[in-house]
Amino acid sequence: MQLPSSLLENAVAQFTKLPGIGKKTALRLVLHLLKQPNNEVELFGETITRMRNEIKFCQRCHNISDGDICSICANSMRNQQVICVVENIRDVIAVETTQQFHGTYHVLGGIISPLDGVGPDQLTIESLVNRIEKEAVEELVFALSPNIQGDTTIYYIQKKISHLACRVTTIARGIAFGGELEYADEMTLARSIANRLPVQQYVK
Amino acid sequence: MQLPSSLLENAVAQFTKLPGIGKKTALRLVLHLLKQPNNEVELFGETITRMRNEIKFCQRCHNISDGDICSICANSMRNQQVICVVENIRDVIAVETTQQFHGTYHVLGGIISPLDGVGPDQLTIESLVNRIEKEAVEELVFALSPNIQGDTTIYYIQKKISHLACRVTTIARGIAFGGELEYADEMTLARSIANRLPVQQYVK
Repeated sequence: MQLPSSLLENAVAQFTKLPGIGKKTALRLVLHLLKQPNNEVELFGETITRMRNEIKFCQRCHNISDGDICSICANSMRNQQVICVVENIRDVIAVETTQQFHGTYHVLGGIISPLDGVGPDQLTIESLVNRIEKEAVEELVFALSPNIQGDTTIYYIQKKISHLACRVTTIARGIAFGGELEYADEMTLARSIANRLPVQQYVK
Repeated sequence: MQLPSSLLENAVAQFTKLPGIGKKTALRLVLHLLKQPNNEVELFGETITRMRNEIKFCQRCHNISDGDICSICANSMRNQQVICVVENIRDVIAVETTQQFHGTYHVLGGIISPLDGVGPDQLTIESLVNRIEKEAVEELVFALSPNIQGDTTIYYIQKKISHLACRVTTIARGIAFGGELEYADEMTLARSIANRLPVQQYVK
């Protein structure tokens, strides 16, 4: 596919750098922008550049923030003694959407994965341990992906804070709502049998 | 889905304006950009703004162009007496990709569609008729969508140039290569029977 203009070619090339966007989709997006008024497209470019240049990360929980401390950390209605540990910002948004968690967060920035070259030093584990020590945190709720890397990360952090009086929990794993038993993988089914709950507790 | 930062919220809002991009996809794209170096994201914004501000349209065929006349019109190797009439720039790219057409193009900018409020005056028909008159064009090849709007547009333009000695053709319509006869719609099958070709001509 050869494009009739180098300006168009460059714009398409920029869009194809984004995840999940191929050359055809990029062209569709660029031709759409071409139909918009100039000032709309300028606003598009400026908003994105400004976002990248001005966005801050909360110094306490490493979540995205407009200021030095994010709105969740600054909210006195939230339980500051309970920390939900997540891999990235998207997970914060996912948990927040449930409206079921009223504590604060800690964004690790990844999970320990030696194969991908991610060790504990690349993550915000040091800062998490500091928080638990200084702020007398009562509970750490791990909401990490249920795989070996997630489990390794939980194990590593648990070891690091074993001398502190902080309860460590993880979000429940089992058969998803609306899921069919027969299609569940063995590992999930086996774990959900081993971790079965009394019905009263489940209903609550 | 509530986002933790207004800068992030604005960037996501800009991406959701693009066709086929919802809020979740937009967030994924924005978080990807957030991981890129600042200058990369600045380049992204600048490239798109620059494309919108500086791109030109060929004064002759209305295709996208870096200069006043596009590279196809300026190419003396192309047959300037044969014009392929298409709806938009994407169609030029599609026909060019086949490498089967060696004439020039004329981009209408749409097709006549009274229901959508598109009349002949909004299209570049006037300029096409001028071209045919002044440049002694020998053949007009219509490559428009095979629907009522496309047929109306062909009929309208044909009427407009009926006094000129210019052959008018349209790209072949029929069963697509690899298509199954039993799944073809009646209209296409009926037309492809009516417009059947001698086998020698087909093989050629």
